[in-house]
Amino acid sequence: MIVVMESHATQQQVEAAIKKVAELGLRSNVIVGTERTVIAVVGEEREHAKEVLEVCEGVSTVMPILAPYKMASREVRGEPTVIDCQGFRAGGTQIGVIAGPCSVESEDQIVTSARSVKAAGATALRGGAFKPRTSPYSFQGLKETGLKMLAAARDETGLAVVTEVVSTEDVELVARYSDILQVGARNMQNYRLLEAVGNVDRPVLLKRGPSATMDEFLLAAEYILNEGNQRVMLCERGIRTFESHTRFTLPLASVPYLHRKTHLPVIIDPSHGTGHTYLVPDMAMAAVAAGADGLIVEVHPDPQNAASDGYQSLDFAGFSEMMDRCRRVAGALDRTLGGPHA
Amino acid sequence: MIVVMESHATQQQVEAAIKKVAELGLRSNVIVGTERTVIAVVGEEREHAKEVLEVCEGVSTVMPILAPYKMASREVRGEPTVIDCQGFRAGGTQIGVIAGPCSVESEDQIVTSARSVKAAGATALRGGAFKPRTSPYSFQGLKETGLKMLAAARDETGLAVVTEVVSTEDVELVARYSDILQVGARNMQNYRLLEAVGNVDRPVLLKRGPSATMDEFLLAAEYILNEGNQRVMLCERGIRTFESHTRFTLPLASVPYLHRKTHLPVIIDPSHGTGHTYLVPDMAMAAVAAGADGLIVEVHPDPQNAASDGYQSLDFAGFSEMMDRCRRVAGALDRTLGGPHA
Amino acid sequence: MIVVMESHATQQQVEAAIKKVAELGLRSNVIVGTERTVIAVVGEEREHAKEVLEVCEGVSTVMPILAPYKMASREVRGEPTVIDCQGFRAGGTQIGVIAGPCSVESEDQIVTSARSVKAAGATALRGGAFKPRTSPYSFQGLKETGLKMLAAARDETGLAVVTEVVSTEDVELVARYSDILQVGARNMQNYRLLEAVGNVDRPVLLKRGPSATMDEFLLAAEYILNEGNQRVMLCERGIRTFESHTRFTLPLASVPYLHRKTHLPVIIDPSHGTGHTYLVPDMAMAAVAAGADGLIVEVHPDPQNAASDGYQSLDFAGFSEMMDRCRRVAGALDRTLGGPHA
Amino acid sequence: MIVVMESHATQQQVEAAIKKVAELGLRSNVIVGTERTVIAVVGEEREHAKEVLEVCEGVSTVMPILAPYKMASREVRGEPTVIDCQGFRAGGTQIGVIAGPCSVESEDQIVTSARSVKAAGATALRGGAFKPRTSPYSFQGLKETGLKMLAAARDETGLAVVTEVVSTEDVELVARYSDILQVGARNMQNYRLLEAVGNVDRPVLLKRGPSATMDEFLLAAEYILNEGNQRVMLCERGIRTFESHTRFTLPLASVPYLHRKTHLPVIIDPSHGTGHTYLVPDMAMAAVAAGADGLIVEVHPDPQNAASDGYQSLDFAGFSEMMDRCRRVAGALDRTLGGPHA
Repeated sequence: MIVVMESHATQQQVEAAIKKVAELGLRSNVIVGTERTVIAVVGEEREHAKEVLEVCEGVSTVMPILAPYKMASREVRGEPTVIDCQGFRAGGTQIGVIAGPCSVESEDQIVTSARSVKAAGATALRGGAFKPRTSPYSFQGLKETGLKMLAAARDETGLAVVTEVVSTEDVELVARYSDILQVGARNMQNYRLLEAVGNVDRPVLLKRGPSATMDEFLLAAEYILNEGNQRVMLCERGIRTFESHTRFTLPLASVPYLHRKTHLPVIIDPSHGTGHTYLVPDMAMAAVAAGADGLIVEVHPDPQNAASDGYQSLDFAGFSEMMDRCRRVAGALDRTLGGPHA
Repeated sequence: MIVVMESHATQQQVEAAIKKVAELGLRSNVIVGTERTVIAVVGEEREHAKEVLEVCEGVSTVMPILAPYKMASREVRGEPTVIDCQGFRAGGTQIGVIAGPCSVESEDQIVTSARSVKAAGATALRGGAFKPRTSPYSFQGLKETGLKMLAAARDETGLAVVTEVVSTEDVELVARYSDILQVGARNMQNYRLLEAVGNVDRPVLLKRGPSATMDEFLLAAEYILNEGNQRVMLCERGIRTFESHTRFTLPLASVPYLHRKTHLPVIIDPSHGTGHTYLVPDMAMAAVAAGADGLIVEVHPDPQNAASDGYQSLDFAGFSEMMDRCRRVAGALDRTLGGPHA
Repeated sequence: MIVVMESHATQQQVEAAIKKVAELGLRSNVIVGTERTVIAVVGEEREHAKEVLEVCEGVSTVMPILAPYKMASREVRGEPTVIDCQGFRAGGTQIGVIAGPCSVESEDQIVTSARSVKAAGATALRGGAFKPRTSPYSFQGLKETGLKMLAAARDETGLAVVTEVVSTEDVELVARYSDILQVGARNMQNYRLLEAVGNVDRPVLLKRGPSATMDEFLLAAEYILNEGNQRVMLCERGIRTFESHTRFTLPLASVPYLHRKTHLPVIIDPSHGTGHTYLVPDMAMAAVAAGADGLIVEVHPDPQNAASDGYQSLDFAGFSEMMDRCRRVAGALDRTLGGPHA
Repeated sequence: MIVVMESHATQQQVEAAIKKVAELGLRSNVIVGTERTVIAVVGEEREHAKEVLEVCEGVSTVMPILAPYKMASREVRGEPTVIDCQGFRAGGTQIGVIAGPCSVESEDQIVTSARSVKAAGATALRGGAFKPRTSPYSFQGLKETGLKMLAAARDETGLAVVTEVVSTEDVELVARYSDILQVGARNMQNYRLLEAVGNVDRPVLLKRGPSATMDEFLLAAEYILNEGNQRVMLCERGIRTFESHTRFTLPLASVPYLHRKTHLPVIIDPSHGTGHTYLVPDMAMAAVAAGADGLIVEVHPDPQNAASDGYQSLDFAGFSEMMDRCRRVAGALDRTLGGPHA
């Protein structure tokens, strides 16, 4: 941590800051510059220390040196974490593919979807039973009935089931019917929920909040890891920017950035990341080329009649074609995408 | 709702879209333009109708005409809602002032704070007992012990107590000890929590999420109103932008904008909205001048030793001076700020 | 400057970085931390040094300590710069008011506008003769003819004339007819233009680019100051964010921030900063309360028939009322707004 | 264009708006909805009409239906524009590759760079002679001397030369020595410069401003097209967002979006788009997979000693490896990247 003093800071203020550093159990190295004095602080950096030093009189700014997350850090664990769950593999050279409708609407819809996405090479099935919706007047999901339909689709196809959990009360219920728990973007900083999924024996797909910084994203993962659940996947699904021609802006540089900072696998969601069906396949291919460990894509038997997110869903033919193209990109880079396909 | 067809849309596609409009129970007015056909859709607009029409073939875009929220809308209720709770008043010509530390740290700290902010004219006391923190390694609050200390401060001063609730499980507990429930920015789209506070007989201070649009913010309020709780205050606390010299960017135009769109009172948080103590008083004055119905300000007996947010907290003298200046601005515009003061 | 090494940097890499520091004529202080080594670099910081050190092997990041601007800095000149130009005063306790139409449309329009805004207390007249427009198909301004009309309005009212210059070729021409040169937001980083206005004996109103950081904004001012022209005013006119209910987001915290960092006066543009007439007066008042040294406001005799920007222009009555309210806010804070008024 | 009236608009206000529409030479279709009246306006939409109608009393908002650009539009010209200039080809199945140092530093540096990037398969050489720099104290380029060095590199290798022009005065000079003119991001809305390059017989590489919307970007291109120069390439180089772990956020969805809206080729700049050398290759591959028509990449013989942008430059070996990988991705998608290579 570097404590930068104001240019007009007094000697007394510098000394007071040094004293504070000592009280925090840290050591000070004082460097007197041409215009300012800075104090380099040595020892284990903690969030609180930064806050305390920031408010000392005469302190201009405090710059942390170390990343605030620990267990998620590449420095703690050099090897990439590979998620391996019922045929779904993400990490290393394997690119997992999660596909399916935004919402579970009926048993027929979800079973048909599962069969089709499996035939195209998907290795997990997505489908929402508990839907967090912007408006209270929108369809909120089939809840436990939907979970049962997901389980039926898994029984039928063997695909791992990925579904969202929106509340601590539901964690146990959702875990009973599914294989991978999704924490949605709106709940990325719902810390109670993070702790709850951190205590369950299920991999977690954690979506980045649309205005979360990378440090905040990794600290959210840290909440889960810190409870003992080491199987966390990070999902980039787009950030909020001034751009309005896409619903969100999908920053694929997150992939190589996160690969450098963390051992956790990185999944890309080109459906939410663009918000328009016609943009999804190109961005899925780009994600594979950028090194993503997985994709999560909205696919619906009949997007024009979907209960939600039809505007960003592929139909089966579109998904199948997208998979063919993504597979070619993966192959060109010596990686394997999804599972066996028809 | 306006359905804009692609310029190359076929007659069949136009007809299919019209048919879909009819299926939704709405009426179509077709306008054939020089380059495109548009369909003006008449009837009660619903989120779902937009989604359905958006995915029809040949449709370029769907533009909603009506606001997606209803009960929050000024068109539904013309008169401004005034929150009146134990001496705290916000709305109309009255500007409520909520002040106090970020976190409750001890009974002495919170009682002293309550006395001091009351003396300076505050009409409610803030203090966090359940703290949502970015890092799992940061101080998480005193929980029920903290709530009891807040209640003690209220007994001592008569100030209304405002405190955050972060989870549905805690709503009843927090409501027992406090007068106004705060839903934090990170939980603005935690819909279960919104529903829970919508079922409690307490005013709610709803903070805007840092990347929430105004429609999303008002729809979050709608979740609460829709459960029956009409006493909702909207709190602007800054949005996330590319600016890094402030922690968030505080857009004060939210005040007149929201006053035009909704009857709910608008509270400004200059502490989180700037993230630096020295910027707080000027932005508090600006908020009053912009027409805010209330302020929420972090004040700590000793910011340099605060458990959290010291860098954006005022000390008692600073708060008292800020209040004097805000009162002068309010007076110049024929409004009343806070309560009686020493 | 603080050079932070990677946690796995070798001793050789640290030594190479130290050698590079020496080559730059700077001194190194090496601090070996628990997880990383950092090198505190002492000496005059230059942009180039940062770039050079950033690319040394084993270097993780380089954090500058000093502001990159010099002449604009409060540390170089403690006293606020006051602009005093033909009755227009901005800085210290004086709040200058620049008002007038977006574009000069006719002599009658601009002279009438000048008279009216003067009667309401404005101390300078704005009006565009060279208009940078987003579309090549929009009205581009009356050019020299418009400049002559502005000069006529000045002759008639004595108001200082503020007008935009968009190209180095026009600087001399525009300076001939006007008192204060405006550099628009789109040209904030048109460095040739900045140099050109830096060589003219006219105060410059420099508008912040909608995505410029504060450092970039102050460095743009530095280009002007560096050429010898010390009379620079900084104009905050809103930044581009995800918000779409306003055209730009107007961050008033720029006022106290800039007052702390620079001696240059800060002018607020609530017209471009909001993009909607009905938001302008409240934001003008807020700007005054936040400590702005001046306002620049679009006022048109007949906004419904304006050649440009009608949607954000006040009419004379609206401007006059806004001025009354702003004057009350200024008075409450012991400041003086604009000039004598009818 | 759709004119949406306020819900409380009077019949008189509706009629006044209809009258205004007629005055603009357009036709009105009035649709009386359940809550509001809307007027669908038919005829050629012009920017000015929107502005005029927006300020009519009782009008809530005006929504354009047509894109504001014409000549850049896919609707005007269905076939993709292919730029073919001295061996550099971009558009259709051909992916052009522009590579070279940020700044021209010496003849040896630029000639060596040209040879190396050509050997790796680049089809054009980049190199800045006129450098727009954020700080007046940074290296500003070798100017005409640099242009001569670029010409020497072209003579040596046959590569097309791409270099930036920052001022109208320099257009002729820069065109004399180079093959493709670059307009930088900071000058995207320097309309005089756009007009000037629109009058020169050279292809133009137009970089997106970091806060430009797509409509603004295409309207900037329209300025060039409108002067008669049809050879415009659009370069996405990243936008400014809240993300700070990259210098800019590179939104690759711009590629398929622009391909749908315009016939102009789309070039991606992964160097400026990320700001960090280690992120460049993965984003270059992703750009190819997303369908980009070209790449522009910073390559320097010795990034650690570059005069500028070393932190985002590849060395020759790194560039060569990147090209190999990009070529494999292009091949997998039946496209051709760059030229012959060693």
